[in-house]
Amino acid sequence: MRHSASHIMAEAVLSQFPEAKFAIGPPIENGFYYDFDLPRSLTPEDLAAIDERMRQSIAADHPFSREELSKEEARRLFVDQPYKIELIDDIEGDKVSIYRHASFVDLCAGPHVASTGEVKAFKLTSVAGAYWRGDERRPMLQRIYGALFETQGELDEYLNRLEEAQRRDHRRLGRELDLFSFHEEYGPGLAYWHPKGARVRSIIEDFWRREHYKAGYEMVYTPHIGKAALWETSGHLDFYREGMYSPMDVDGQDYYIKPMNCPFHIQIYRSATRSYRDLPMRLAEMGTVYRYERSGVLHGLARVRGFTQDDAHIFCQPEQIYEEISRTLEFSLFMLRTFGFGDFQVYIATRPEKAIGSDEQWEQATGALRHAVETAKIEPKIDEGGGVFYGPKIDIWVKDALGRPWQITTIQFDFNMPERFGITYIGMDGRERSPYMVHRALLGSMERFFMVLLEHYAGAFPLWLAPVQAAVIPIADRHVEYAGAVARELDEADIRVEIDDRNERMNAKIRDAQLQKLPYMLVVGDKEMEANTVNIRLRSGENLGALPVAELISRMEEEVRKRG
Amino acid sequence: MRHSASHIMAEAVLSQFPEAKFAIGPPIENGFYYDFDLPRSLTPEDLAAIDERMRQSIAADHPFSREELSKEEARRLFVDQPYKIELIDDIEGDKVSIYRHASFVDLCAGPHVASTGEVKAFKLTSVAGAYWRGDERRPMLQRIYGALFETQGELDEYLNRLEEAQRRDHRRLGRELDLFSFHEEYGPGLAYWHPKGARVRSIIEDFWRREHYKAGYEMVYTPHIGKAALWETSGHLDFYREGMYSPMDVDGQDYYIKPMNCPFHIQIYRSATRSYRDLPMRLAEMGTVYRYERSGVLHGLARVRGFTQDDAHIFCQPEQIYEEISRTLEFSLFMLRTFGFGDFQVYIATRPEKAIGSDEQWEQATGALRHAVETAKIEPKIDEGGGVFYGPKIDIWVKDALGRPWQITTIQFDFNMPERFGITYIGMDGRERSPYMVHRALLGSMERFFMVLLEHYAGAFPLWLAPVQAAVIPIADRHVEYAGAVARELDEADIRVEIDDRNERMNAKIRDAQLQKLPYMLVVGDKEMEANTVNIRLRSGENLGALPVAELISRMEEEVRKRG
Repeated sequence: MRHSASHIMAEAVLSQFPEAKFAIGPPIENGFYYDFDLPRSLTPEDLAAIDERMRQSIAADHPFSREELSKEEARRLFVDQPYKIELIDDIEGDKVSIYRHASFVDLCAGPHVASTGEVKAFKLTSVAGAYWRGDERRPMLQRIYGALFETQGELDEYLNRLEEAQRRDHRRLGRELDLFSFHEEYGPGLAYWHPKGARVRSIIEDFWRREHYKAGYEMVYTPHIGKAALWETSGHLDFYREGMYSPMDVDGQDYYIKPMNCPFHIQIYRSATRSYRDLPMRLAEMGTVYRYERSGVLHGLARVRGFTQDDAHIFCQPEQIYEEISRTLEFSLFMLRTFGFGDFQVYIATRPEKAIGSDEQWEQATGALRHAVETAKIEPKIDEGGGVFYGPKIDIWVKDALGRPWQITTIQFDFNMPERFGITYIGMDGRERSPYMVHRALLGSMERFFMVLLEHYAGAFPLWLAPVQAAVIPIADRHVEYAGAVARELDEADIRVEIDDRNERMNAKIRDAQLQKLPYMLVVGDKEMEANTVNIRLRSGENLGALPVAELISRMEEEVRKRG
Repeated sequence: MRHSASHIMAEAVLSQFPEAKFAIGPPIENGFYYDFDLPRSLTPEDLAAIDERMRQSIAADHPFSREELSKEEARRLFVDQPYKIELIDDIEGDKVSIYRHASFVDLCAGPHVASTGEVKAFKLTSVAGAYWRGDERRPMLQRIYGALFETQGELDEYLNRLEEAQRRDHRRLGRELDLFSFHEEYGPGLAYWHPKGARVRSIIEDFWRREHYKAGYEMVYTPHIGKAALWETSGHLDFYREGMYSPMDVDGQDYYIKPMNCPFHIQIYRSATRSYRDLPMRLAEMGTVYRYERSGVLHGLARVRGFTQDDAHIFCQPEQIYEEISRTLEFSLFMLRTFGFGDFQVYIATRPEKAIGSDEQWEQATGALRHAVETAKIEPKIDEGGGVFYGPKIDIWVKDALGRPWQITTIQFDFNMPERFGITYIGMDGRERSPYMVHRALLGSMERFFMVLLEHYAGAFPLWLAPVQAAVIPIADRHVEYAGAVARELDEADIRVEIDDRNERMNAKIRDAQLQKLPYMLVVGDKEMEANTVNIRLRSGENLGALPVAELISRMEEEVRKRG
């Protein structure tokens, strides 16, 4: 039905644009699309007209019919359709099939519904640019997306979800809440964190550092650039070059900006002779890395060219990996829960065909991963053969408030790097041994994690993360001084507070605070001034009435403490 | 006298190495040096022999005598001395002078003491490599340094200071206390912060961020790379290119790693229309920048190729600059005092000959700097014409424990950048106006500031900064469990503690803790276990006797709170 709808849409486009060239029009999850080469950009009015025409075609209930042609016949039929010709050339065998309905004919393997009348509840949702065959050196086409379901109810539900997702789009919220920006002209995919976004990030980083210290990690800071020699030894120049930027020249030597932190952490490990007493050694860093992504796939904070990993490398004795992996998994779940995620899916990726490291290493490492997941009482999904060539891994996905899954944590063995840099430790028996090395990023990267948080909460961060926690709103000018006193009291209690003393009506101020998703709005007028209270309105709309400032502070402190 | 000593040293070297080639041998502060081209590297034994020979020459009291020669005669005299020939070629006029004593003769403008016997208390202190004429493409020579004073007392005092400075050399302390490392093979001048160094840095950064938020700053995070277009507009490619690394290529465009943060902060300012209500806007970032330095001048953490500035840019209305500069200066003095510096010298650098910006701007800005320094009751030194072309500045120097001055804070007006990026704000009158922009780094950079702190404290960081604040030292195996309980209690009070349960004698453990400059050593044996106390030894050597753990914690918390 969805595929048939794409034909009906193509018919409608053709009636609107007789010179249209047709590319492909497959069914997709929730609907369909079709890519067109058109003489001009589509307008909302075009979409309305196409929609109208589609409904007429459905009402007319034209039957779909299939024919087989020789490639030669098909080429004659589609002589004005260069994309179809290219598709015909690529089809194996001598015959191709076409589908007709009304006056429209399309190269198509089918199947289709019997007639256009069987197509049910649909809506054209958007137009986007798409390269022919996804190749940015080929022409840019216009792709019209449609949603299609069996019933209007299902369609409405889907459209609501779509609208909610758009409302929560982090790029939109980033602008509306003034959290971050991108500056294409100075480099696409490079995020600039504005004060409010940076405030949230810095709270996350503080929390992250404190918890990491508690968990026995040690922080390090390492450079963002390193000589070619480093990346040759690490293997990145052999295996990861397409993800790296071209080198810069320093004194006739090639330097690369880092796509990963591991080779640097290894240098710190190697800077002294290590003994079994030093292990496990857990080196952590908020490490900013730069990786090449094609400009076409960049997407807000979700897909960027520079990002800060909450990175750590654990070096341990082989016999310590069970405990280390268990602790790491528990630590990750604790972190994710603290940030408000409760629905996890854990994937264990096992040995791929091409792999380095001994059978024993793979078994032991994969065993440690399984053991940790079992101990955490989680049912993992096994991604057989999905590990990287250098070791097995765990990926943790969370579901956000809209039920969308996001990959966040990764815990990954590395049998490669320790060998390449020849790192060792002196065992209890006095002999030199090879440590295990585990990469892990619990939040993934600050950019992506912030994006997920932002969409999960639709910008309404829980109190402990909110960049501004309260606005004091004086009703009239004569309340501004008292508002200032209240704000100072909150400020002294380390509550992030703003005074809205603009010359606006109280309702406008409340609306603005609401739009900024401020957790607490504290209205002060004559009554509050006299009683030394504030009238508390929550962003949920709930009104808590008047409370003394000290009580408000206790309440807020408690809420922050609980990270609610 | 110092110059004469360098001749006496050259005579001694010649007697030791008849094939020696002589470069130059000037007097310097505290002594003298001479650069030699020798057939092999000098050993400590060579130095002892040279020293002995010098003393003989001094005892023999050879008179110094001066002669004038034509350049032609001089070239014949120094025919085997290529460096002298080059020096002769460079001397203007037809005549040169030479000085003789004993059998030694040197090309020299003089003057000298009457005879070698007048040379007083000296000591040869070190040998270092030095390029002929400081040019790294010319031969590397061996430079022998000597210290020389009128009296043995003065010499001894100087040598003590020198020894103390060497004992405090941050490169040495960095190794001994395991604070940081450099990895030449992967890029000289790039610091790797090890866990203990990173702990200190992260305490400094936490403190810095908290105080900046309190002082009305807002944090931002910006990328480390930007397209050529950014650096063209900012003017860096025109005026600062030699300090920048060569570009990397991304999608056919040049990207540069940042030598400064300012153009990025300006983009955040520009990301919205600003009004007078938004000003002053103070954007702060621990911004890591990369600048080219010749490899010859790199020196530990003092001169590096990548460093993190404690950077901020203040955007304000012209009428706000008096208050802003005053606040900034006070803020800087507060920070520097907190880190233990009390002896400041403030330099105000005024308009240079070539400068941009109007007279009014320069007067107002320089006036604001003077006003701030006066308000802080500091007697500034005026560096007339020493400002940068784009605005006047204040530099603050501190004196460390050895009385050595270090430049730390810089507060700098910029009339250039706001104009280049055309930033504005809407004034109270509704008209578009140009804000003032002030760059400032209070600590300068984390690398350099850490270096100064490290040398100032000789590695014995005050308690609040100490990476490890206490070591619990069990006397025998039977005390290890109790030591663990003590450590847990301290840990819960957020005190950074280690247990030394190695199989070593107590005195060895105390010696090691002392070498690691741990503030508190807590010895626990039978008596302490029974009484639930710890026996406290401070790194000063002072013994506080036995105290209950709770009392110890209060004492330490108080010390941390005072940042003493």
